[in-house]
Amino acid sequence: MRLALPHDGAMRDLSDHALLSLNTATVRKQGDLLAIVEACARHGIRAVSPWRDQVAQVGLGRAVRAVKDAGLKLSGYCRGGMFPADAAHAREARDDNRRAVDEAAALGAPCLVLVVGGLPQFSRPGSAPSKDLSTAHAMVEDGIGALLEYARGAGMPLAIEPLHPMYAADRACVNTLAHALDLCDRLDPDRGGALGVALDVYHVWWDPLLHAQIERAGRERMLAYHVCDWLVPTRDLLLDRGMMGDGVVDLRRIRAAVEGVGFDGFVEVEIFSKDWWARPMDEVLATVVERFRTVV
Amino acid sequence: MRLALPHDGAMRDLSDHALLSLNTATVRKQGDLLAIVEACARHGIRAVSPWRDQVAQVGLGRAVRAVKDAGLKLSGYCRGGMFPADAAHAREARDDNRRAVDEAAALGAPCLVLVVGGLPQFSRPGSAPSKDLSTAHAMVEDGIGALLEYARGAGMPLAIEPLHPMYAADRACVNTLAHALDLCDRLDPDRGGALGVALDVYHVWWDPLLHAQIERAGRERMLAYHVCDWLVPTRDLLLDRGMMGDGVVDLRRIRAAVEGVGFDGFVEVEIFSKDWWARPMDEVLATVVERFRTVV
Repeated sequence: MRLALPHDGAMRDLSDHALLSLNTATVRKQGDLLAIVEACARHGIRAVSPWRDQVAQVGLGRAVRAVKDAGLKLSGYCRGGMFPADAAHAREARDDNRRAVDEAAALGAPCLVLVVGGLPQFSRPGSAPSKDLSTAHAMVEDGIGALLEYARGAGMPLAIEPLHPMYAADRACVNTLAHALDLCDRLDPDRGGALGVALDVYHVWWDPLLHAQIERAGRERMLAYHVCDWLVPTRDLLLDRGMMGDGVVDLRRIRAAVEGVGFDGFVEVEIFSKDWWARPMDEVLATVVERFRTVV
Repeated sequence: MRLALPHDGAMRDLSDHALLSLNTATVRKQGDLLAIVEACARHGIRAVSPWRDQVAQVGLGRAVRAVKDAGLKLSGYCRGGMFPADAAHAREARDDNRRAVDEAAALGAPCLVLVVGGLPQFSRPGSAPSKDLSTAHAMVEDGIGALLEYARGAGMPLAIEPLHPMYAADRACVNTLAHALDLCDRLDPDRGGALGVALDVYHVWWDPLLHAQIERAGRERMLAYHVCDWLVPTRDLLLDRGMMGDGVVDLRRIRAAVEGVGFDGFVEVEIFSKDWWARPMDEVLATVVERFRTVV
């Protein structure tokens, strides 16, 4: 089954980069969050999605002020999750996630991205080892359910990010958009905006059900949209993501589908790459902007 | 939803290794097919699944005689497929796959394993590059459909192997058991045994739908079952598969499901690993046998 594509004319115009958001991990090796915020100003980038460790490094208060002073918007905050844990680590997981919600609220993020965790020994190190994926799935569902109550109180939407199946053991055991949406439907049947997904092309481009599941998600569930590219060959499971246009992902077709259900948020660029981390920040950001305007 | 497990008592006894088959790629760097056949005799291994290049290296006639003289059975033949191609490479793909069927028949294999191919530029090098996965999916379906007629004539069942999604671009764009079974149902609705799947735990262990889809496959579609393990961390996308027991795959639970639908074939060990390729053949095979008897 092949879904009809909207005409290009129905897609948003990215030929300036007003809709670009920079996931700050993309240049994490080149400078701290304050330096990245300054660089965004130089390149006319109007939104960011920071990581917790980058915020912690400069301090939450300074991060909040820097973002506000620069007039930057956020497209998300990375990240909560890592729910599977043994009993001795369950409270740590709960408290850590509540702090992530509070930080996201302080920064004015539109959502907290959830990387849900895999087996407990990797999700919360020190937990008793297990090979039981079904139990990890259940822990994820319970964990999101519990955090959702807290997040509703803080007015902070939660965005489940399905990760590529190659991360199922150590990073996230929710690996398809369908699985993420199943969790959303069970935990938030009203579709009121408190729970949705962060869709990153890197993780889902291969999925034959992707377009049908984007339709299923609809505007209410589509809280964030991330781009980069899949390189062939990919030389490292974690740190070899490609710049948009350098790989095989049919970026326009996926964006057409996402915008086809009414997504109107920022398009966030998130690249973890030893290659790009080794280049000067301004070179990386200039390339991000150019590719954003031409191939995303 | 968690499926009930059969009692251990319902699973087959692997405490001797009469049901072990060795995929000959597991020791491809340590010797040619004739040397591997001799090594199998030393270790009491009664079945193999050879690769086409290993057969070609010694010649089909010698390979057939060596296997027969050793009294070895086959659990499969690796591999046909790589269907996506541009028009200039379509005949090459067709003829190549027909030869694979003929070789499988000459060797007495119970099935030809199909690695279906990804985008055409990787599946059949020289083909015009494309990012269109949907068209690749269609080419795979057309290619299997055409080969199926030829294979029926030769009495050779075809086993579609869903590959891990990290191989979607360059090796196989069929990445879930559900997708493989959809193809089977459309191309062979009668479930007569001419078309089925080769299930390798390495590729499918992460899938939350795995157990439901094993039920759906049933005995008629389950033509081959492969084991190894998923290592954390995995340091190479292709050549870092683990020895059974060294990773996170819940091997017994998956085998219970496969045998629960009536699978009664060999359990094939297939490990592509720079580490294991660097060890002496007898050490690898002794380890394979020991792990087979204790953790598979």
